[in-house]
Amino acid sequence: MDYYSKQISKLIEELSRLPGIGSKSAQRLAFHIINMPEDQVMSLSNTITDAKKNVKYCKNCCTLTDQDLCPICGSDKRNQREIMVVENSRDLAAYEKTGKYDGVYHVLHGAISPMLGIGPSDIRLKELMLRLQGDVDEVIIATNSSLEGETTAMYISKLIKPTGIKVSRIASGVPVGGDLEYIDEVTLLRALEGRVEL
Amino acid sequence: MDYYSKQISKLIEELSRLPGIGSKSAQRLAFHIINMPEDQVMSLSNTITDAKKNVKYCKNCCTLTDQDLCPICGSDKRNQREIMVVENSRDLAAYEKTGKYDGVYHVLHGAISPMLGIGPSDIRLKELMLRLQGDVDEVIIATNSSLEGETTAMYISKLIKPTGIKVSRIASGVPVGGDLEYIDEVTLLRALEGRVEL
Repeated sequence: MDYYSKQISKLIEELSRLPGIGSKSAQRLAFHIINMPEDQVMSLSNTITDAKKNVKYCKNCCTLTDQDLCPICGSDKRNQREIMVVENSRDLAAYEKTGKYDGVYHVLHGAISPMLGIGPSDIRLKELMLRLQGDVDEVIIATNSSLEGETTAMYISKLIKPTGIKVSRIASGVPVGGDLEYIDEVTLLRALEGRVEL
Repeated sequence: MDYYSKQISKLIEELSRLPGIGSKSAQRLAFHIINMPEDQVMSLSNTITDAKKNVKYCKNCCTLTDQDLCPICGSDKRNQREIMVVENSRDLAAYEKTGKYDGVYHVLHGAISPMLGIGPSDIRLKELMLRLQGDVDEVIIATNSSLEGETTAMYISKLIKPTGIKVSRIASGVPVGGDLEYIDEVTLLRALEGRVEL
């Protein structure tokens, strides 16, 4: 990109390496940043490095946090005997937004994927099994409803079953407000299989 | 957003202030940045501040650059007597990508918009008029084909006409490969008005 001078090209290049940012967006972002007031640019730049420096894994549930123990694991209002297993911190946030779940979480940071060469030892499974040595009533597996998510759910449930701890999987089916006409067949069959008596 | 710890929330918030980045993308970017190797994060952060510190306006054409004179204005391979007027540096880059334009540019950094309260003195028009006191053969107005772009084109052409310098406007019409069926009526009418004899 020799249409721009070096510093601008470098910024565009770095930005376009971020996920979901193509070359057009990177250009737009770069010029926006250059036109931002200097203090805002400094603040953005510092926030990026601070987050990188200070964010670590919660020593209990492995979510990303800036303390040793994340606010959820550290709360006495949460049921520490109920663990919901999610693939990443964003999925945790999605369930937190519902405001109705009062248990705690375990963040795997990935899902088992033979295709991508991600095995059980590449995700935070060992840490989960360690937690199960304490007092746990139920493990709710809330990995994605994708091939990888299902594989991971299967694997975890088989691992936990022998311990006698209750293992459950979040329901799969037609999303609320979903129009049957536009829903894929796999989901429709899943919804049929998972039907509940009224 | 109290589902995330402070440092993460702050990063998400700063990122979501950038144009075209909603809260979902900001979350995805934030976690991506946190998971990036430390040296890459430092490089991103430094590139941002460096670009802000070192990028300035070319003293001739007003495009954003890190030298006093941008590479195009400084090149002896470019026809300095032909000036294409564009709204911003990205539009300049768009024409540079064609590889066929050998004149120079003038970047207005905006367009006249009575709606947004942007008048002729808010864009780099004075700088353009100063350049026209030198040797100039033609001014090609390449502002956008929007209401603001057209208003600006009109205004500039009226301003230049008395100087006797040739003023032209890039053609407006059906884009190459465009399917008439999907093109708006204004463009279709514009294409008809601008028809050329074969």
